Amino acid sequence: MIANATTPIDFYFDFSSPYGYLMSEQIDAVAARHGRQVNWHPILLGVIFKSTGARPPADGASSKSTYMRHDFHRSARFLGIPYNLPSRFPLPTQNAARAYHWLFDQDTVLARAFAHAVYRAFFVEDLDISSPETMLKIAAKIGIDRGRLETALQAQETRERLKAEVDNALRLGVFGSPHVIIDGEPFFGADRLPQIEHWLKTGGF
Amino acid sequence: MIANATTPIDFYFDFSSPYGYLMSEQIDAVAARHGRQVNWHPILLGVIFKSTGARPPADGASSKSTYMRHDFHRSARFLGIPYNLPSRFPLPTQNAARAYHWLFDQDTVLARAFAHAVYRAFFVEDLDISSPETMLKIAAKIGIDRGRLETALQAQETRERLKAEVDNALRLGVFGSPHVIIDGEPFFGADRLPQIEHWLKTGGF
Repeated sequence: MIANATTPIDFYFDFSSPYGYLMSEQIDAVAARHGRQVNWHPILLGVIFKSTGARPPADGASSKSTYMRHDFHRSARFLGIPYNLPSRFPLPTQNAARAYHWLFDQDTVLARAFAHAVYRAFFVEDLDISSPETMLKIAAKIGIDRGRLETALQAQETRERLKAEVDNALRLGVFGSPHVIIDGEPFFGADRLPQIEHWLKTGGF
Repeated sequence: MIANATTPIDFYFDFSSPYGYLMSEQIDAVAARHGRQVNWHPILLGVIFKSTGARPPADGASSKSTYMRHDFHRSARFLGIPYNLPSRFPLPTQNAARAYHWLFDQDTVLARAFAHAVYRAFFVEDLDISSPETMLKIAAKIGIDRGRLETALQAQETRERLKAEVDNALRLGVFGSPHVIIDGEPFFGADRLPQIEHWLKTGGF
């Protein structure tokens, strides 16, 4: 398969996913090195897991859950990315995802800045990103009108916009976060970044 | 934490685990570069999953399962390791694991050669490693007495030896394959090899 350098990469993630956050801090730079842009798609893992019958991987007190909470932090240190396990984790992220898609339809650059701000608010500053108030504050900081976003978060249209994104992700076989698709080739997990880079460089291997 | 260069690394795996196979082809060389040896521990993921309540990750026809079967092969290509998805997969591996531990207690070098031969028989030659006959053939090829191994595979003692290994793995928090432990620090997955190498190099990060 020959990579098409004009086609953007698709990046699916949940704002409550630590590995999604680690990917969000790296994917744009990796893509740019190979002349690609990235379309970001915040989705809801809760809906994905309900549809696929999967359980949240880091839930509960299992040995796997304990390991993952340890690995989130170690992986962040390995990659040199600031990270703290939030005091409330995981959190519902529909307000963050709805705000993102509403913004994206008006200003893609502002939407990207908003997504970074939400992820860092959660995984660096330990803010409660499930709250509409936190969304409004983050949005206001980067120059988005508070009143307009507040109205948008209540609108049926904004809910449907996110639902369509999640439905589309399911249709494409997205089952977790982060999930990156390059010219139809799927890569799951922040640890697939070396393969993603090699794929972009070689056009498939 | 300062790495203790005299302590061996522990490598837990199931003979039916593709990512375990990928790790088996790399871990000894990585450890040796940092003056370490590796203790190999074949275990039974079926018993681990039953105890932890987990489901086999690549079972069934889910989008995750489809992805994983694709990723096994792509990861092998990325690492330059020969690989074919076996026509019967996954397989029960108690005969292979029992043979390994019986051998290990007599000759650790021969046991390592046997483990490599079993993994390659399954993931390169597509042989049925669940069958005692395949175990006997592989063992005979590397100079192990067929009759003695045949007797050992039936012995209660050999069963108990494996059960003790699996119980110990569970006690240590092993929940999947491959699972590597360096001076108490756990690493899950073949994709943690870069972190393992960095940990060995720096003594922890």
